[in-house]
Amino acid sequence: MYDRLKGFRDFYPEEMTARRVVIDTLEDAAARYGFREIATPALERTEMYADKSGDGIVEELYAFKDQGGREVSLTPELTPTVARMVVAKQQALSKPIKWVSTRPFWRFEQVQQGRFREFYQTNIDSFGSAEPTADAEILAVAAAALTDLGLTGEDFEFRVSHRDILGGLLRSFDADVDSRDAIRAVDKRAKIERAEYLGLLSDAGLSYDQAESFDDLVTTGDLDEIAAFGGAEVESAVANLRAVLDAAADFGAREYCTVSLSTARGLDYYTGVVFECFDSTGDVSRSVFGGGRYDDLIESFGGQPTPAVGVALGTAPLSLLCQRAGVWPDEALATDYYVLTVGDTRGVASRIARDLRAAGNVVEVDVSDRSFGAQMGYADGINAETVVIVGERDLENGEVTVKDMDSGDQTTVPVESFPGDAASPTYDDIT
Amino acid sequence: MYDRLKGFRDFYPEEMTARRVVIDTLEDAAARYGFREIATPALERTEMYADKSGDGIVEELYAFKDQGGREVSLTPELTPTVARMVVAKQQALSKPIKWVSTRPFWRFEQVQQGRFREFYQTNIDSFGSAEPTADAEILAVAAAALTDLGLTGEDFEFRVSHRDILGGLLRSFDADVDSRDAIRAVDKRAKIERAEYLGLLSDAGLSYDQAESFDDLVTTGDLDEIAAFGGAEVESAVANLRAVLDAAADFGAREYCTVSLSTARGLDYYTGVVFECFDSTGDVSRSVFGGGRYDDLIESFGGQPTPAVGVALGTAPLSLLCQRAGVWPDEALATDYYVLTVGDTRGVASRIARDLRAAGNVVEVDVSDRSFGAQMGYADGINAETVVIVGERDLENGEVTVKDMDSGDQTTVPVESFPGDAASPTYDDIT
Repeated sequence: MYDRLKGFRDFYPEEMTARRVVIDTLEDAAARYGFREIATPALERTEMYADKSGDGIVEELYAFKDQGGREVSLTPELTPTVARMVVAKQQALSKPIKWVSTRPFWRFEQVQQGRFREFYQTNIDSFGSAEPTADAEILAVAAAALTDLGLTGEDFEFRVSHRDILGGLLRSFDADVDSRDAIRAVDKRAKIERAEYLGLLSDAGLSYDQAESFDDLVTTGDLDEIAAFGGAEVESAVANLRAVLDAAADFGAREYCTVSLSTARGLDYYTGVVFECFDSTGDVSRSVFGGGRYDDLIESFGGQPTPAVGVALGTAPLSLLCQRAGVWPDEALATDYYVLTVGDTRGVASRIARDLRAAGNVVEVDVSDRSFGAQMGYADGINAETVVIVGERDLENGEVTVKDMDSGDQTTVPVESFPGDAASPTYDDIT
Repeated sequence: MYDRLKGFRDFYPEEMTARRVVIDTLEDAAARYGFREIATPALERTEMYADKSGDGIVEELYAFKDQGGREVSLTPELTPTVARMVVAKQQALSKPIKWVSTRPFWRFEQVQQGRFREFYQTNIDSFGSAEPTADAEILAVAAAALTDLGLTGEDFEFRVSHRDILGGLLRSFDADVDSRDAIRAVDKRAKIERAEYLGLLSDAGLSYDQAESFDDLVTTGDLDEIAAFGGAEVESAVANLRAVLDAAADFGAREYCTVSLSTARGLDYYTGVVFECFDSTGDVSRSVFGGGRYDDLIESFGGQPTPAVGVALGTAPLSLLCQRAGVWPDEALATDYYVLTVGDTRGVASRIARDLRAAGNVVEVDVSDRSFGAQMGYADGINAETVVIVGERDLENGEVTVKDMDSGDQTTVPVESFPGDAASPTYDDIT
């Protein structure tokens, strides 16, 4: 007997039924906004992550040398891969480039609730526009995906921040600050003790007083005050954030957004607007998902300067939110028909099953040569709505029996006219 | 600039559109036969493949040691994983267990036409029935998937064989034969010179004369002659093969099947019926996909004895067949609406876009602050069927313009009633 690897999951049909509804809902929302499906490799050269993704991700890479001697890694996230793909065809692709895909990623990290070593994300990205409308469209498609799942503004909020506001504020202090380290400290703010947080800001170059006043600004949320303190760079970033929120209002997503400058996002490549989705009730304590603008990444990959913004919706944390909110789909199989054979009736039963399938129904038949009772038990186990009983004696009268599994009611119908022209005839249709 | 790894592919939206149609068609066919979707890990313990899959696969494993010191491999095929999953929940799962999934697999092999290091398969498996109907259902669902794609009996054939016929014939010779090696030789028969093939049979323990007469039997296809030659074991296997073909007739798949005992399948774990799909015209020279029965695998994984049969449809070889037959789907984007803004009309345009999306349409809007002409060019590039022009001047008259992109015809409609109750109003609906 072999073990499954820790942090990896097998999804059996019942659970998968619910996951499929959720993933399809996310992808359908993206499709309606004109994001187009792509598919991407599971392995990339390790060097692609070394510089771009931040230390946290590099430490967690499933990295190895392939049989051809290449240093390769299981992809820990999609963004570097799509950046590579944009660069590879940058002349041929008309902008904006709007892509969506759902697939697993891999990070060797501590397994905990909602966090696994193999985890699934739906990534939605837009390349080629620096306009606030492009940021707002990402917020809008993420909001549409969540509301399509049955979530409401009572259930979730998007905490929206701006890297250039944080960076500009840091640069406005009379200190030699490592903005990257300071922003990483802000990203950790909610997860660590205040002393440790201030210590990280101090390590990044701020004095204790500067760290305190930086933190006051970050947490006030008063954009006018912040713009006044930070000078031209911060003013411009505040204007950009406001323009994104205005566009989000037109796009129907403003109501889900709160300004929260202490939301920083951990990845190094972000620029401009960043955001994270949180459970409004706080029951799901960690960020559900996040996204933001990464205008410099394509150029750093050797491409033409190409602004970009995107979001990655993780299925596992999203399932925690959906379960908390009571909108996680039923984990149950659905079957339209079971066509049951009694005696040597396989020929007729197979014809009926094929006709019902041709009309799009989910239809099972006996493949185990089982008794009436065993077939009925199986039909019940797969939640068959209707059982069509094809018995030798009924057939002598030119009939089959149609049984509604919910009520137990049944009736006979002429075999030659079943299912006939009706796509999905049920007991209620017949009687 | 970073390179993609050799043998790995990026799928951009146009190509992905066609692949999505094909994969959805395969999965829909499986769903209508009651196969239920599962999802499975990309990594498994390497030991799981060492004994079960045959040397060919083990040599091609992407195997490495993870950060926890475990010997792990990227999954080269699905069968061992589903066997592991069946064993893990064998008490809880009601039989037959019928599963389907589509995902990539990985083998470090020579890249050639239709063969890549990362390749996608739709796996369809049935566990728990040793009956010929279970084999026939796998043939039927594979045939339904292909005919749903638009292929016909002129395009493909299933070459059906039986491991116990081959094994029984080998055992009927007065020789100490390694059946596994001999069956591997049969699997290679069409790909190697006759002298090499006979040499492999000789290595497996047959004399030259025995190898010649074995090959005569394998290629005759006369099941009566084979049964007479081989004794009780072969007779029983021939009866089983005939029962599978009879059930396939009831299930509508017999017409696609030819008996071809020289079709052996390379993997060691097969027992009973095996089959491979071939291009009837021979233009696609290699096997398109294959499957068969593997009744001993679950037990060898430490589970209760559980018969099993399945098929794995590879997207890449299937695409070669579809392209050869002229049924590969269009590689083109589809867009229902582009809502074009002229001047400061984003609020109204956004409301229209949201209403159209709520009705299920694919709708794009400007996110790049572009001119009328640039927006029109983009709308054309994404194959928008209808462009809704929301212009400042039109809005002063309470109107928007609806333009059919195919004909170029356009008309104006009152903005407050667009789209109104119509789900997808087009120029033709309006005029």
